[in-house]
Amino acid sequence: MELGPGDDAAIVRAPGGRVVATTDLLVEGRHFRRDWSPPYDIGRKAAAQNLADVVAMGARPTALLIGFGAPPGTAVDWVDALCDGLRDECAQVEAGVAGGDIVRAEAVVLAVTALGALDGPAITRSGARPGDVVAVAGRLGHAEAGVELLSAGLREPADLIDAHRRPRPPYATALRAREFGATAMLDVSDGLVQDLGHIAESAGVRIEIDGAAVPVPPVPDGLRLALTGGEDHAFAATFPEGAELPAEWRTIGRVVDGPAEVLVDGRPYRGGGWDHFRLP
Amino acid sequence: MELGPGDDAAIVRAPGGRVVATTDLLVEGRHFRRDWSPPYDIGRKAAAQNLADVVAMGARPTALLIGFGAPPGTAVDWVDALCDGLRDECAQVEAGVAGGDIVRAEAVVLAVTALGALDGPAITRSGARPGDVVAVAGRLGHAEAGVELLSAGLREPADLIDAHRRPRPPYATALRAREFGATAMLDVSDGLVQDLGHIAESAGVRIEIDGAAVPVPPVPDGLRLALTGGEDHAFAATFPEGAELPAEWRTIGRVVDGPAEVLVDGRPYRGGGWDHFRLP
Repeated sequence: MELGPGDDAAIVRAPGGRVVATTDLLVEGRHFRRDWSPPYDIGRKAAAQNLADVVAMGARPTALLIGFGAPPGTAVDWVDALCDGLRDECAQVEAGVAGGDIVRAEAVVLAVTALGALDGPAITRSGARPGDVVAVAGRLGHAEAGVELLSAGLREPADLIDAHRRPRPPYATALRAREFGATAMLDVSDGLVQDLGHIAESAGVRIEIDGAAVPVPPVPDGLRLALTGGEDHAFAATFPEGAELPAEWRTIGRVVDGPAEVLVDGRPYRGGGWDHFRLP
Repeated sequence: MELGPGDDAAIVRAPGGRVVATTDLLVEGRHFRRDWSPPYDIGRKAAAQNLADVVAMGARPTALLIGFGAPPGTAVDWVDALCDGLRDECAQVEAGVAGGDIVRAEAVVLAVTALGALDGPAITRSGARPGDVVAVAGRLGHAEAGVELLSAGLREPADLIDAHRRPRPPYATALRAREFGATAMLDVSDGLVQDLGHIAESAGVRIEIDGAAVPVPPVPDGLRLALTGGEDHAFAATFPEGAELPAEWRTIGRVVDGPAEVLVDGRPYRGGGWDHFRLP
């Protein structure tokens, strides 16, 4: 960035003359729990979910802006660790924290805005075409498995708990998706079926998923979690048939002519997904 | 904008290859009260304070991103009116709402990010030079007078109550500040003396204010309110001596060599200003 915190606004470079921008509001008790996650991980995750949105547009993240609300008694150490997490996640994609606002609030509230630069055409949700393959990069259902374990009072297996605390979006391979010919892309934040539904609706196509091809977490009910669990911030994309994809991408289905819907093994999947207004 | 809500992120034009970005987090009970302001005005004000930050950089606002948290029982009409307010304020400067996020929260929380395009050099806080004049455009102390009336249980005079509910930053003349030669600019959000202090510190200059030249609200303690009250989002700027300023700008002082401080009638002013972490 050209100018960081300390003026009325930050100045961020936007080389292609366009900027990609996305915002999320995270509320304590709903999007994170201080008894489930250390502040560093809360910061990592808050940054990750917005950076993943930028990358899913085919853009390169450049900067985060943070709005932070906290009760007056919040420990400075806690806030410092959160900021470290935000910065370290930004460093994964060579972005930086450009500015922010800090206010008093009843609960911890974190508003994260991510900006990105477009070096070429955007990869939107509407570009999927019949004949394309559907592929995913990254973990599915792991974060949700972690939430279910934590909700049951468990603290292991550690890798599933960690998956909830700190998603690991495969930024590098997603940043190359345009090279591989991606026609549509998004990050899986609400659940694979629900999110692919956004591509189906935007592009006016049917998406057929092969359940056996979907990578699942190592738990008994793995496929359900992989199809409906959000927050791993895997990337799901469509590519022309025959596209040569690196090993990080796993082909799980195809795009066909038909009504805008997602079928799993030939049937609509009614397992649910994240509802932004559901009660916990 | 090129692409609005509905994808992973919005795409906003940034013609000069740079984007100005700023974010504010507004919390019910602290930054606004639902019993003091109708939702339309809360929206207008939330947009205004961010658009004013963008304009104060010498940039043209292009888009807002909104993070909105509310209790589940919040009436849809209330939210609609808030959004109308956000949009109508954006329309004042030909910007639009590019996207957002809506979540459940205990209290109403509003995270507003504003983006802007730079058609020339930014007007930062550090550009003030000894010899410059200091001028303000817009109202000072009116919003704070309104807060004091509301706090005392009063509902008039209406123009002061309205000043609290809905600031009227003089966007048009501030958007032309570069033409008039502005060397530094900001919007007065925390109080004139405190905010001019930011220019004094950034530029390493002393600012001398002539109390008799400061426009004051029509209340007994007008000068105190004009010097310390925030939230009118007037613009304060420095211009080279002799600059021909339109009538909206009122010269109130000058920039001189000296330690980084603000003097009012030759003395430091100890009246206070907005503290982002004070208890109400």
